[in-house]
Amino acid sequence: MEINGVEIKDTYAEAFGIKASRLLITATTERLAKIAATEATGYGTSVIGCPAEAGIDSYMPPTETPDGRPGYVIMICNPSKKDLDNELLERIGMCILTAPTTAVFDVLEDPDDKFKTGFKLKFFGDGYEDELEIQGRKIHSIPIMSGDFLVESLFGYKKAVAGGNFFIMAENKMAGLTAAEVAVDAIDDISGVITPFPGGMVASGSKVGCNSYEFLNASTNEKMCVSLKEKVAETQIRKDVGGVFEIVIDGVDEEAVKEAMKQGIAAACTVEGVLEINAGNFGGDLGEYKIQLHDLF
Amino acid sequence: MEINGVEIKDTYAEAFGIKASRLLITATTERLAKIAATEATGYGTSVIGCPAEAGIDSYMPPTETPDGRPGYVIMICNPSKKDLDNELLERIGMCILTAPTTAVFDVLEDPDDKFKTGFKLKFFGDGYEDELEIQGRKIHSIPIMSGDFLVESLFGYKKAVAGGNFFIMAENKMAGLTAAEVAVDAIDDISGVITPFPGGMVASGSKVGCNSYEFLNASTNEKMCVSLKEKVAETQIRKDVGGVFEIVIDGVDEEAVKEAMKQGIAAACTVEGVLEINAGNFGGDLGEYKIQLHDLF
Amino acid sequence: MEINGVEIKDTYAEAFGIKASRLLITATTERLAKIAATEATGYGTSVIGCPAEAGIDSYMPPTETPDGRPGYVIMICNPSKKDLDNELLERIGMCILTAPTTAVFDVLEDPDDKFKTGFKLKFFGDGYEDELEIQGRKIHSIPIMSGDFLVESLFGYKKAVAGGNFFIMAENKMAGLTAAEVAVDAIDDISGVITPFPGGMVASGSKVGCNSYEFLNASTNEKMCVSLKEKVAETQIRKDVGGVFEIVIDGVDEEAVKEAMKQGIAAACTVEGVLEINAGNFGGDLGEYKIQLHDLF
Amino acid sequence: MEINGVEIKDTYAEAFGIKASRLLITATTERLAKIAATEATGYGTSVIGCPAEAGIDSYMPPTETPDGRPGYVIMICNPSKKDLDNELLERIGMCILTAPTTAVFDVLEDPDDKFKTGFKLKFFGDGYEDELEIQGRKIHSIPIMSGDFLVESLFGYKKAVAGGNFFIMAENKMAGLTAAEVAVDAIDDISGVITPFPGGMVASGSKVGCNSYEFLNASTNEKMCVSLKEKVAETQIRKDVGGVFEIVIDGVDEEAVKEAMKQGIAAACTVEGVLEINAGNFGGDLGEYKIQLHDLF
Repeated sequence: MEINGVEIKDTYAEAFGIKASRLLITATTERLAKIAATEATGYGTSVIGCPAEAGIDSYMPPTETPDGRPGYVIMICNPSKKDLDNELLERIGMCILTAPTTAVFDVLEDPDDKFKTGFKLKFFGDGYEDELEIQGRKIHSIPIMSGDFLVESLFGYKKAVAGGNFFIMAENKMAGLTAAEVAVDAIDDISGVITPFPGGMVASGSKVGCNSYEFLNASTNEKMCVSLKEKVAETQIRKDVGGVFEIVIDGVDEEAVKEAMKQGIAAACTVEGVLEINAGNFGGDLGEYKIQLHDLF
Repeated sequence: MEINGVEIKDTYAEAFGIKASRLLITATTERLAKIAATEATGYGTSVIGCPAEAGIDSYMPPTETPDGRPGYVIMICNPSKKDLDNELLERIGMCILTAPTTAVFDVLEDPDDKFKTGFKLKFFGDGYEDELEIQGRKIHSIPIMSGDFLVESLFGYKKAVAGGNFFIMAENKMAGLTAAEVAVDAIDDISGVITPFPGGMVASGSKVGCNSYEFLNASTNEKMCVSLKEKVAETQIRKDVGGVFEIVIDGVDEEAVKEAMKQGIAAACTVEGVLEINAGNFGGDLGEYKIQLHDLF
Repeated sequence: MEINGVEIKDTYAEAFGIKASRLLITATTERLAKIAATEATGYGTSVIGCPAEAGIDSYMPPTETPDGRPGYVIMICNPSKKDLDNELLERIGMCILTAPTTAVFDVLEDPDDKFKTGFKLKFFGDGYEDELEIQGRKIHSIPIMSGDFLVESLFGYKKAVAGGNFFIMAENKMAGLTAAEVAVDAIDDISGVITPFPGGMVASGSKVGCNSYEFLNASTNEKMCVSLKEKVAETQIRKDVGGVFEIVIDGVDEEAVKEAMKQGIAAACTVEGVLEINAGNFGGDLGEYKIQLHDLF
Repeated sequence: MEINGVEIKDTYAEAFGIKASRLLITATTERLAKIAATEATGYGTSVIGCPAEAGIDSYMPPTETPDGRPGYVIMICNPSKKDLDNELLERIGMCILTAPTTAVFDVLEDPDDKFKTGFKLKFFGDGYEDELEIQGRKIHSIPIMSGDFLVESLFGYKKAVAGGNFFIMAENKMAGLTAAEVAVDAIDDISGVITPFPGGMVASGSKVGCNSYEFLNASTNEKMCVSLKEKVAETQIRKDVGGVFEIVIDGVDEEAVKEAMKQGIAAACTVEGVLEINAGNFGGDLGEYKIQLHDLF
């Protein structure tokens, strides 16, 4: 299969179950909302080593938000319900409540259950907190230095999909990188997904386990390293490929992840120097979802 | 004391000891270095609830970096040596190694001691890693998907200063917010300091303990809340003040923090509608450093 | 009339006829498209002194553009058909053709007529140019240094509306400025309009003619200057107003301008410290359109 | 000659005399200063078709500006003294005076002579204008809607250098583009120069005259077009080159342009896939300056 002359490999992305919340941060201006959203979703690339997987989902204009102010929707994900509960509490309490002019609303559809995040945060008000209703939502108003911080009482979470992915194999590093950038541009328009890695792009891949050092659970995936393609017999890198980047996608459901993979791959294939699209899997035994690249188109 | 018609209160900022590392992230372009620096310093406002205090210190042009590429200097801070060691490992491993085209160097002067961060990360290379020397620095080269990731073997840390601060009291919220923004602009030019809160600005203040709820260690500082100034007898907010923001500064030493406070306050006082500059302290019993506002000028 | 406690004056904006073109600039990435769009719409605040009124209308995702790449829609306006023809030629030729990886398409609906902009630009190809069809559009392909520049053969123009406007009167300068910023955020979501002034905001207002210097056709509107409110008897500035900013809107038709005024005013009224919304007119004798503020809501 | 494995051709850039002014725009915040600087330097790539060549030179922190506010230094250039006079007047009057919170100062050293730009603009004040002195500078204060606009009375201009340049020849388009981006990053740190094209990069090159169409004075330089390298016998593009971008530099003097070329080339040579650095000249008969690439290192 080819798109725009780029070979789409007949393989699949192996994705995993995770738990996700989806929050709307509003602020006085778009710029202020983005400041809070960026801080709250940092240090959130992969739960292998980060306390959560987190990212900005999409911009929401003032006409669509509960308080008529511009906002950004973010997603925060963790396999553990308990850890996700804690991450919501800390990321809202430390990175959004402390940010200028913000408010936070729950915008997850069809939640499995809800966390009492806002309910818990209200005690920070030390008795001065208040309760409001905005568009049928129960909101806590907490007096802080610069005014009142509004936070929804409950935040939903649901079983979601983590680790949707595809690999961009290109002539050289910069062609691969530019293709990764426009893939992220395209995915930005899909609602219900995030690309949690830095700038949405992944420069390193890992395999389960480690051959040389027994104490490590994960190590570099030498078969996918461009600088090792001459040295590793089982390399999966074509001779003409000099740049490889991965896009990793977390989404509220499999459909959202599939749509993001589809649009991201289509965008990557518009870039000169892209040769092949591949996907990452672990033989199919680890993850719950198998997303075939050829089925997307 | 007055600057530009703004009253500078005769008080002091109470600051604390912390341990800090200072890292240089370089990348192929300035933009790519910033992407990695932003991810690696996110979720890092205060160790009250975040795993570290972290922020971007300054830009370093290609003429000054070890590898001739543009870069950003970041700082990562934690009171615990063990926690700081772990934060360096995870933030570099998850947020910089995974980011496109990056390398990481140690740029802390006069360290108390060093962490073996790069040495530990090299095992991710599963035997394919290599060792280089760049400008007298011992560097590990780890093959990753898109090329080789370079990381210095050791990263210094030293006793540093956290919680340098000042409060901007303004006519209304937007005047205070704009003054906070330009204060951060001014502090951006000072080497050796970060403003770890979102956009460098703090919208909420806390006090130790909680009067209404015994189970809380910290709660809103009601004396500094603009929306409570009519309700709280001991309010520290003047009648004509409607907007209060704090700037919090962590620095490699007291001198750097003082210089940042000085330039930040001077910049804030250029903004129309700023009425008073104050500072936060806890009576002087908690922190190691007392920085008198009047001594700065 | 009041919105969110802000007085909406019972007055109207006086707007003018102008001729407008609407172009889509696509590029390999969103960032590259924005670079070209920014250069091509600069020096374009008002035809009083600039060669055109120009601005970015909206972002268009890869799924919606003719070539599957991300893009920005811009508008270029001038009262004179001849001048508009020339501005299109020069701004495309000098600022878009010269920008990395761009292509340009006509996206004006219901044009009055078309300019042969692409047809004229093709001669730059010196015989090496080619002709393509993309989605029914006639496209010229011009070889340039870094590849082939694609430009649509014809670009429509139509009678449009310039000078839609409203004034934000606030407690002080920073409250007014922040309200202007969020008004521009809100208008960014309306298709078919631009806010051509710097950052979309206007800091200075003019009146026709000049009392003190006969040789000037236009001069500061002293009745709307905050720093003159004590000195000018006929001031239109309330005693409690310390900051005034104007939003000026050009749009493809009156409906688009009205919608932008409506959403911009609604957004401005969410900002603390905004006291009054006014509008600018010249007694109704100069402009073709009278847009009553009260009719918008 | 080679840098980092990249061939530096033994050739020269042919540069031209031009007249230049250098202005400092300050504003309440760095962000607001940049908004004005961007609008004022737009539509300013080349005087072949734009009314001026213009760009942002460098950021100036609050500690260094006459009014203690952050600012951006811009340059505006034109071969004609009369046209430059007019461009200063219009770009300041339409794009800076109208921008929120700005002031403008003259920061050109060793001017040949001065324009009365501020003196002329003051009449816009209609008798309400005032005169101040700031750090020995004569300043006009003009009441505008949102406050008082400060502009220096006189702005120097001097003979400067336009068209300093080099070409980046790379494996493919994206490698060339990334190298162009980091070259611009490096040049950003050199004081006294601008890169006036979109994002600092030039995607199209021209030759004097046109072979196929007599009515054109300039046309595409077919010898430097990657898509024509198989068709044009005298092509200057190596077989292995697939991406070519040019950096064009205007500077206050030859030394500044040389330093910018040196640092830009050094930065470009750090990017994987860059094969050759070349320079543009017209046989040496048109321009006043010949800058040999090999002399830079």
